[in-house]
Order: sequence, then C-alpha cells, then structure tokens
Amino acid sequence: MGAMGNTASTADPALETTQTDRVVKKRVLLGIVGDSAAGKTTMTRGIANVFGDDNVTHICTDDYHAYDREARKQMSITPLNPECNYMGIMEQHIRLLAAGEPILKPDYNHSDGTLDAPVLVEPRELVIVEGLLAYHSKAMRDCFDVKVYLDPPEDLRRRWKIDRDTSKRGYEVDQVNADLQRREPDSEAFIRPQRNWADIIVRFHPPSASLDVPPDQLSVRLVLRPTLAHPYLMEIAERTRIEGLLPLRVSLARDRGKPVDVVEIQGSIDPNLSSAVEEAVLEGMSTDLAGLDRSTVGVFRVGEDKLRSESLALTQLLLVVQLLSARANS
Amino acid sequence: MGAMGNTASTADPALETTQTDRVVKKRVLLGIVGDSAAGKTTMTRGIANVFGDDNVTHICTDDYHAYDREARKQMSITPLNPECNYMGIMEQHIRLLAAGEPILKPDYNHSDGTLDAPVLVEPRELVIVEGLLAYHSKAMRDCFDVKVYLDPPEDLRRRWKIDRDTSKRGYEVDQVNADLQRREPDSEAFIRPQRNWADIIVRFHPPSASLDVPPDQLSVRLVLRPTLAHPYLMEIAERTRIEGLLPLRVSLARDRGKPVDVVEIQGSIDPNLSSAVEEAVLEGMSTDLAGLDRSTVGVFRVGEDKLRSESLALTQLLLVVQLLSARANS
Repeated sequence: MGAMGNTASTADPALETTQTDRVVKKRVLLGIVGDSAAGKTTMTRGIANVFGDDNVTHICTDDYHAYDREARKQMSITPLNPECNYMGIMEQHIRLLAAGEPILKPDYNHSDGTLDAPVLVEPRELVIVEGLLAYHSKAMRDCFDVKVYLDPPEDLRRRWKIDRDTSKRGYEVDQVNADLQRREPDSEAFIRPQRNWADIIVRFHPPSASLDVPPDQLSVRLVLRPTLAHPYLMEIAERTRIEGLLPLRVSLARDRGKPVDVVEIQGSIDPNLSSAVEEAVLEGMSTDLAGLDRSTVGVFRVGEDKLRSESLALTQLLLVVQLLSARANS
Repeated sequence: MGAMGNTASTADPALETTQTDRVVKKRVLLGIVGDSAAGKTTMTRGIANVFGDDNVTHICTDDYHAYDREARKQMSITPLNPECNYMGIMEQHIRLLAAGEPILKPDYNHSDGTLDAPVLVEPRELVIVEGLLAYHSKAMRDCFDVKVYLDPPEDLRRRWKIDRDTSKRGYEVDQVNADLQRREPDSEAFIRPQRNWADIIVRFHPPSASLDVPPDQLSVRLVLRPTLAHPYLMEIAERTRIEGLLPLRVSLARDRGKPVDVVEIQGSIDPNLSSAVEEAVLEGMSTDLAGLDRSTVGVFRVGEDKLRSESLALTQLLLVVQLLSARANS
C-alpha cells in the first residue's frame, strides 16, 4: 500500500512464519496517542481484546520517563516534556519492534512514581504503542502502520482525569486541577501538535452542550485523513444503512484546511441496531476474521463497573478493519 | 584491515566528527572476557585510564542478568549460564553501540544482587565490553575490533576470587569455594570455550610453581592469534632489545594446533628497564598518541593498596597499540 509515512515498516522484512495456523503474517504497528486521561488505555485494551492478548504486544511510552516522580518534582518538569523522557531510546525501541526485534523495555511504576528494572518485550502480530509522545519524531511516526490520536474536548478530558486520578491514583481533586494547570503549557507545546500526524482522530463527545451525560452515551466523531487508505469506508457506510437509518454517517469535510472523511456515530444508537451494524462492518471484509474476539468490544470500566458504549464498539471495529486492511495490503 | 570476524563494525558508518581536535575518528570496540575474577575489571580500568574516561564507554555484561540473586538461588541457576541472562538484548546492545547508537542498559546491583532501573549509555570513541559471556554468539563477536580473553591458571583465579569476594562482597571463604564448585560445570560449558574466539589471550601466571608470589611480580604470556594483524609486533620486539636483554620475548608457537605468536614478559623485569621498554613500545607508532595518559599504566589495587606491575603495564600498552592500530587501519 502506498500509505504515507510507512517507510520504516515496509522496508523491513515484512513476512514471517509463526506457530499459528496462518502461516504468513505481517506485523502491524498501531499508535494510540493523546493527552493524559484522553482514553488511551481504554482504546488499547479494547483493540487488544479483539486480537487476543497472545497476539498483541502493548507498550506504554510512560515507561520511558528518565526521572522518577521525586526527581521531576525537584526539577519542576512534567512527564509531557520530551526532556523528561528517553526520547532517543523510545524511538529506537519502536524501530526495533517494527523490525521484529525484542526490546528490554524500561518500567515506570505509576503507583509509587519510581523507575523499576526493565522487562523483556517481544513483538507479536500486533504491536500497540500507546502514550503521550509516541509521534514526537519523524523516525517514530514512520514506524506505524496506523496512527490514532485521541482528541476529546478539553472539559471532558479534565473530568476523566479527575475521575481517574482521584479514584485510581489516590489524588485529591485540587491536586489534579493544579496538575492540569501545571501541565497545560507542555500539553500545548508537545502533546496537541501530534494531532497533526495522526491518520485517524477520535473524538468522543457529549451529544449536547452538557457534560452530564452517561459515559456510555457519548457520541464519536472520527476524522480519517487520506494519509491512510480507508478502502472499506464507503462500502461500510452503505452496508450499515439499516431500516432507512444511517448509524454511521460519512461526510467529506476539511480539517485544518485539508480534505478528510468524517464518520459520525451517535452514542444513543439502539444496541440492536448497533449489533447489526457491527455485523455489517465486518461481513464485507475479505481478510481472515478467524480468531477475532468481539465479545468485549465497546466494554469499558468506570471504577468497578463494566459498561458498554455502542459508539466505542463501532469505533473499535472500524480501527480493527483498518488494522486488518494494513496487514493484508502491506 | 582484513581482520576476521569484523563485518558488523566495518559495515557501519566508520567515520564521525567529534567535538575534539581530531576531526575524524573511528569508534573501536574492545572485548574483555574471562571467568569470574579473571582480572577483567583491572584490565578494563587500566585501558580506560590510558584513553581517558571521557573517551571511553565501559559496559559490563553482568548487567544483563535476567534474574536477581534471590531468583537465581530458587532456580538453582548460575549467572554463567546464558539462560540466566538477556542474551538477545546483550547482542542487540553491543550491535547498537558498534553502530554508534545509545542504549538503555539494564543495571545489576552487585552489592545486593537486585535488578535496578536501566541507565542511558552513549558510545564514545572506545567502547569496552567486559564480562562473562560477551563472545557467546557470532553476532556479538562480529561487533568487536579486538577480542581479549583473560586466562589465568585456575588455581590463581580461584585465589583471586576468594580474595575479592571475601574482601569486597562480604562472603566467607567456604561460601566462595562452594560457589566456585557450583559454577564449574557452567565455566566449562560456557565461559572457557570463548577462549577460542579471542584475538589475544592474556595469561598472568606465577614465574614458578608456587602461587605465593607478590601480585606485582606475576609474569604474563600473551597469545596473539592471526585473526588480527599484529603489525608492530616484530618491530616492538626489536626496539625493546635493550642492553642485550629481551624483555619482550616473541616466539612462534602452536595454540590448540594453530600457529600463533607468543609474547612473554617476566614479572621480575626491572622498573627502569620496563620504563624504557614502554617508551620503545610507543615511539614507533605512526598514529596520534596525543591525549593518552600513561600515568596509571600497570597500576592495580589490592584492597586499599595501589601496586604497580611491570608485566601488566607492558600488556596494557600492547593492547593500546593494538587498539590504535585497529582505529587507524579500519
């Protein structure tokens, strides 16, 4: 495929034999980038579940912090700043994984903020690189087959961050707000500019102005840039035209002046319709769907509760289609 | 130079500009391999001192232990066993350093036997890779410009190990002896076979049968294999013929059936003569000697004491000549 920016991965030996039934497989690299609490882990887990943990290698670039929490505090530097991270090594490791080599990945301990002993990571069929700065350099970007950027509205992201950091990481609301304020200049300088490099921009958003919408009722807007072929898009839009409804609305638009496809999915879509749409999304795929596990598609956690979002489910399936297409065509 | 087994380093971009006076420099990789307490650290420090710490990157392959001391104990595995180490990553890191790339090196804590957070290592002009298993795979061996193996007589090495482990690592003599016994099958299987791959084999030994000789009076026997050119050897032997003496005796011999040069230096050589020999060793070198620091050549530590060995000094200088020659000719 003539996908732009994929020189590194297409130049590498692309075919390999594995121990599974399918003899020849292409390794695919998926990037999931976004600001803190933009939903990276939720999206990563959803995709990994579909392909099966045994087939997926997942690394988080937070592990490349060069300083522990205490040192960052003394230096007044945030983890969003490239200077706070081993960027050269992050780039090297992404390149090595793309080339099929194992890495000895550093390990940042989120619970106590310390740097632990590194761990061995072997690249499997699908490599997901998730993190704040994974599109920072061209050499990094060139390694990915599909680059996703998560771009929720800022007020929604702030709410997500407060919810997560107070429930899972033991912070007070005031601390999280102060942290958000301290990080804002680096978000502006280093994180949000990476939106420019994404092939697919995912924006979960409330259907109306209020943030007080149940999290399983968010709508989603996907911007699909022509940096990737989106070969099944129009077909999928047609196939999913069910009972006169258009649950996936595809339109042509401009994003920062450049032409893009936009897909919109309402969060309030009826689960039965959504389920029919899921079937329609996948049924036209010519590639092998065996081994895909769709049982947890769209499922996410809020605290101890598991919820299911139809817009999340369909977004994940569209990304799966994109990854299967990247694997089949490269 | 047509040195055997050097394809990796000569295939890499060999020339680079640096911030120092000398504009063009070749990176040189030196391997120093031998069993536990064979003298690797002493030899490494001596060579690093000559080139200056700012010009030398030194890594120890002990850092690539995959299990901490506690886990090794439970698994009944010794650190001499390749399965106890991240061998693939060790190979990858040696290759990356040879190619001029930085690595994030794992870090084994010898004092408490735990695995620490990794550290960033940038390759400088001279890269010394020291350790138990650095010649284990062909891909590793191919990275080195000069491969040294330290091969003291077993009874001398055991004495050195007891001295070191009881003074620096807090063990009892009985513990060290038990450790030596436990390690012997792995020494036999994995460490000593690496002697086969060395360009230069260094054997410090007592001049007579007794081990009770002052450590600064050991003689040395160097085996120089034709896998490397030893271009200055005969010249040096001639130049060092002082007052009718032959402080460096060069002879032709067979090592395991194959022809080699052998250099022998008596430990009892008079310091004044040794000093004159040092001058003679270096004076014929056509390469740039500026920046070499010879003030600590031959110096080694026994506990808190610093001693100087003339045979060690001359061995180190011969290795320096070999490294300068590798840099000049590649």
